Amino acid sequence: MKAKGLIIALDVTDKEKALNIAEETSSYVQAIKVGYPLVLSSGLDIIEELMSYTETVIADFKVADIPNTSKIICRLARNAGAAYVIVHGFVGEDVLKACSEIVDIIVVAEMSHPGAEAFIQPVSEEIALLACEYAKGIVAPATRPERITKLRYVVGRKLLIISPGVKAQGAEIGDAMRAGADFEIVGREIYESERPGEKARKIAKILKKV
Amino acid sequence: MKAKGLIIALDVTDKEKALNIAEETSSYVQAIKVGYPLVLSSGLDIIEELMSYTETVIADFKVADIPNTSKIICRLARNAGAAYVIVHGFVGEDVLKACSEIVDIIVVAEMSHPGAEAFIQPVSEEIALLACEYAKGIVAPATRPERITKLRYVVGRKLLIISPGVKAQGAEIGDAMRAGADFEIVGREIYESERPGEKARKIAKILKKV
Repeated sequence: MKAKGLIIALDVTDKEKALNIAEETSSYVQAIKVGYPLVLSSGLDIIEELMSYTETVIADFKVADIPNTSKIICRLARNAGAAYVIVHGFVGEDVLKACSEIVDIIVVAEMSHPGAEAFIQPVSEEIALLACEYAKGIVAPATRPERITKLRYVVGRKLLIISPGVKAQGAEIGDAMRAGADFEIVGREIYESERPGEKARKIAKILKKV
Repeated sequence: MKAKGLIIALDVTDKEKALNIAEETSSYVQAIKVGYPLVLSSGLDIIEELMSYTETVIADFKVADIPNTSKIICRLARNAGAAYVIVHGFVGEDVLKACSEIVDIIVVAEMSHPGAEAFIQPVSEEIALLACEYAKGIVAPATRPERITKLRYVVGRKLLIISPGVKAQGAEIGDAMRAGADFEIVGREIYESERPGEKARKIAKILKKV
């Protein structure tokens, strides 16, 4: 992925809708993030179809299994065309190592929802440090910009930081990038909009000025 | 799920092979656990097909996303026919609550691989306690029987305990049930065997005597 900007989270369960939104927003987004909502309802081949509209598909599978199973999941995602697979850091170093041998990984260092404060946040800096060994980037929450700044301090300029939690979960557009993120991930705000293309264009414009 | 016994983990990526093994082993297993290796390569409909051979399919999706996305994943699994969905506890209470409103969940309290010692094991008893509020069962590692005993103490008889990590990961058949588990989950030892049916029969026989 180049530079900075907008990643769209295509968490819809309707394949046609997903492809339409990917097409409409393609000029404004640097990458498309697909997760299990879309992949389970449309099949893994959706990744290849989305590559008509983007150079970079991120498989947000939040892989969190034992090393052997995690590896199989990463291989399937890579073979389907994903440039990156998102893997949980919480499951430990052996999982990160196993996955990174298969595909470029982005590690969830910290999550954007309230529940993440209980068990993930207390160890997120340790996870970010582990990620420096195995990953191309980390995930850090736009909902807590001060955490992004802290995690940027941990990973330096070595890793990308991508940030979910924008709008639907409460962060404003630009908050995460101002705090140190490279990319802001926007889902519902775009895909639930009447005019996803226009919405993505406006968001991308704001992010360009950050 | 009734009583105690054997759960097969069908972590193969070949649909025909999966269905053959399900058929051969059907008399000896109480439930089939399917994860992303099989579902990503065969499609979610595999769950319904497997229900020709078992009453209980457990979708081992190790759900670990924000509440909204986790809910969508659980709904897809439930609609496909899964009786239970496995959800990670480390993502916090709001995720467990959201998922439990959709489907019966089994919560990963602790995992069987070495990497789980870093971040999951220190909080596994807290996770098990949370699970008592929202789940029908927990996952605890056969590779560390003393941890099963500890986690049984936390959840009492209220929740089922299912235990992966048997054979391929090092535990012997019966270790987990002797330590307090209700079900032992066996994958590679059965599905990589030349005669999966015969292997499952032997394992079930041993477990019956525990």
